[in-house]
Amino acid sequence: MTKIADISHAIGVLSWDKETYLPVKSDRFRSQQIATLSAMSHGEFTSPEFGDIIQNALAVKRLKAAERRNLTITLDQYQKAKKFDEAFVIEQSMAISKAFQLWVQAKKTGDFGLYAPALDDLIRLKIKESKILNFGDHPYDALLDQYEPNSTVAQLDKLFVDVRDELLPLIEKIREAKKPSVKFMHKTYKKDKQWDFGIYLLRVMGYDFDMGRQDISSHPFTISFSPEDVRVTTRIDDNDLANMTWSCLHEGGHALYEQGLNPEEYGLPSGGAISLAIHESQSRLWENHVGRSRDFWQCNYPSLQSKFKKNLKNVSLKDFYKAINKVEPNLIRTEADELHYHLHVLIRYEIEKEILSGNCDAATARELWNKKYKDYLGLKVKNDTVGILQDVHWSHGSFGYFPTYSMGSFYAAQFYQQAQKDMPDLNEQIAISNNYPLLQWLRTKIHCHGRSFEAEELCKKLTGEPLNLKYFIQYVKEKYGDLYNIDL
Amino acid sequence: MTKIADISHAIGVLSWDKETYLPVKSDRFRSQQIATLSAMSHGEFTSPEFGDIIQNALAVKRLKAAERRNLTITLDQYQKAKKFDEAFVIEQSMAISKAFQLWVQAKKTGDFGLYAPALDDLIRLKIKESKILNFGDHPYDALLDQYEPNSTVAQLDKLFVDVRDELLPLIEKIREAKKPSVKFMHKTYKKDKQWDFGIYLLRVMGYDFDMGRQDISSHPFTISFSPEDVRVTTRIDDNDLANMTWSCLHEGGHALYEQGLNPEEYGLPSGGAISLAIHESQSRLWENHVGRSRDFWQCNYPSLQSKFKKNLKNVSLKDFYKAINKVEPNLIRTEADELHYHLHVLIRYEIEKEILSGNCDAATARELWNKKYKDYLGLKVKNDTVGILQDVHWSHGSFGYFPTYSMGSFYAAQFYQQAQKDMPDLNEQIAISNNYPLLQWLRTKIHCHGRSFEAEELCKKLTGEPLNLKYFIQYVKEKYGDLYNIDL
Repeated sequence: MTKIADISHAIGVLSWDKETYLPVKSDRFRSQQIATLSAMSHGEFTSPEFGDIIQNALAVKRLKAAERRNLTITLDQYQKAKKFDEAFVIEQSMAISKAFQLWVQAKKTGDFGLYAPALDDLIRLKIKESKILNFGDHPYDALLDQYEPNSTVAQLDKLFVDVRDELLPLIEKIREAKKPSVKFMHKTYKKDKQWDFGIYLLRVMGYDFDMGRQDISSHPFTISFSPEDVRVTTRIDDNDLANMTWSCLHEGGHALYEQGLNPEEYGLPSGGAISLAIHESQSRLWENHVGRSRDFWQCNYPSLQSKFKKNLKNVSLKDFYKAINKVEPNLIRTEADELHYHLHVLIRYEIEKEILSGNCDAATARELWNKKYKDYLGLKVKNDTVGILQDVHWSHGSFGYFPTYSMGSFYAAQFYQQAQKDMPDLNEQIAISNNYPLLQWLRTKIHCHGRSFEAEELCKKLTGEPLNLKYFIQYVKEKYGDLYNIDL
Repeated sequence: MTKIADISHAIGVLSWDKETYLPVKSDRFRSQQIATLSAMSHGEFTSPEFGDIIQNALAVKRLKAAERRNLTITLDQYQKAKKFDEAFVIEQSMAISKAFQLWVQAKKTGDFGLYAPALDDLIRLKIKESKILNFGDHPYDALLDQYEPNSTVAQLDKLFVDVRDELLPLIEKIREAKKPSVKFMHKTYKKDKQWDFGIYLLRVMGYDFDMGRQDISSHPFTISFSPEDVRVTTRIDDNDLANMTWSCLHEGGHALYEQGLNPEEYGLPSGGAISLAIHESQSRLWENHVGRSRDFWQCNYPSLQSKFKKNLKNVSLKDFYKAINKVEPNLIRTEADELHYHLHVLIRYEIEKEILSGNCDAATARELWNKKYKDYLGLKVKNDTVGILQDVHWSHGSFGYFPTYSMGSFYAAQFYQQAQKDMPDLNEQIAISNNYPLLQWLRTKIHCHGRSFEAEELCKKLTGEPLNLKYFIQYVKEKYGDLYNIDL
């Protein structure tokens, strides 16, 4: 498992470099190198010898529960992985590299046509992948399971119906209320000063720069090469203070999870994250519950203000707090407020379901995209750069990833109310810039256990019940009712 | 071969990252990841199947000469590589990672004792390696051959005797002459401006930033992940303009070689460099024959002057040219002038010979180091940071590398006089900042052939005779005779 983890993390380093520092014309051999390592990692993991090792180990009597669990999860992954032959792994790796490269160009120029054939190729491969995996009631299920083990279309359909039924009316009400001004957020904010402030925020959260670093990439991400080397990236728009700020808080949340995993369990399920939804719960918790709270900014706003005196000297904390929580439909998912965000996810979920059903090619996906933005958010997609080209996920070959964003937010709300219950002075601590108690709570309750539990198990253990949307709705009602001074 | 190259270059990326961007406490797993990939690359290359493939291919009739040559070289490498078992490869990879880490700390603090046990361990492993390889008249031969195929102690002893006999008297004479002032080189030169000037120099040479990049590391190096991704690093000392400037020219020379290799021969000997001495000939040619010439600075000094107006406004081109060619003994190899440089190499050559003879542990090496600097350069080593700890090579496990530096310089002199013969207006072109004819000459005469010839063959083909020290001596006499206005 160590060897396989070493190869996977080497692929990670090559991928990180590809998205941060790779020279513009160096892509060809890098893609090939990543494909070669992917095939080797796959080959090691799916070798009959490795299968025998796991099965023999599982036959050992008096295994510790933790050992048995590591073996059981690994056996399940092994049985799924060995369904793919090397040719398929290489084909997909190369298709992803090509698609990513074309996506970058297409996004820059707004030319969806440039990217569409590569996307069609990925769609073909993803349908094939689902057929090869061959489980679940819906073809989408086999892919959903890769990001969120045990999640299914049946379960998500139900969740998203609730989201629509409960969230849409709230959004409607807020839309009628008077909007705070966010004009000052779009003044010119020098990139190097923003960068410094981003680093400051990561430090404030407790991110360890001795075992991590931040760099620039076109799409922010977190990547771990071990719990002792967890890196984040961000992007900086000098006309939008929010872009970098909440990307740092979001990726920082992911990174704290990875830095909190047990390095002694490196390569084992017990040394990895539970699922993407739980991962996302960590990023959302820091980004929204902490990072868009009045308490957090009470101590950090003065630092921001002193960095950008000219832009912010006449903006009170109250106005700032209102601005960063403005609820308004927007074309860009990563810039969405906490409420509209889930409509963005809903749209992607519905399109991916169509894609995996085999009813939707790249061109149709684009049509659906534009139609659904009109229907759900009332917005016309001006161009594909702010439309279907905005997200990196599909060009990374990730289909089934998006739903975990919403699940993560809902887990975050449920976990955070529990943290507040467990630490009655939590908000006061955050207000004096002491985030350590919260980090410690997350470390001991969630991070250090790795994948010793499944998502639902963890949630029950921590909060006494499985994922329940009511905590998110309750949070929204309180926060935005107060903010907009309306009865939600 | 492509697969093996992919793994090797992945190791390259992990190593590059380790020396440029790795967080300070992330070394443990990175070392392990590099060791795992090293073992895998070794395993692939030395597998019996791979041996069969080469031998079967060699048995094919009517092979093209180029194909036969690729196969013959690979077979030789295969036969040498398979002498090592995986355990040795991993042990050495881990020992190198550890040694490098300790070397960095030891160099920073000047505490040789911190590094000595790791160096002793490497010495033990290198002697073992020589025994495993088991060829040559001297135990050092098997290691020399790894960097410079076919080079031996017998040959190098002869060369270095000539160096001493011919170079030392010249140095003696120059030592008596009046020294130019270099005080202005040690004023404060802002790091970001130096950085910009380094990038400018690389561009002037013809280095392609679309397929490469420069970063900062503690010891400058060039690394290639393919001819389409060749990276250099530098370091910047804000009290020494020379440090970065000639590091850029030097590494740029290496990088131009790598960028000039044929990408279609990726992974094959015909797509790789001939040897380290030939590699070094490229870096030395640009660093010294071009980069310390009056012609080169005639067009580039104004740019430098305008960047550092305050420091350089009263320094004429003539004074600058004299300063950058000052001959004076110095403790640091990388800061040595073109003449003393070879005494630094001589010292390392003699110590490595002792080490491989089994007569010298880390402590003895340090004593020898300090004694020889007194004997050859008349200098007292003030501390180990500027003494035995100055070079990265041993901590990288490279023993046998240093002699190629001197050979490279001598090759450079011989190649450059040929280039001047082939292009009578070469110096005039360089003086108007047109370095393209020289680069083209190097590309067509040397770079594009990869390892289609051995070093000596190439030298004969290009200049009509094997390596001959006289070209270097002739160059030195002309340049420094004129510069110091003495008869050499």
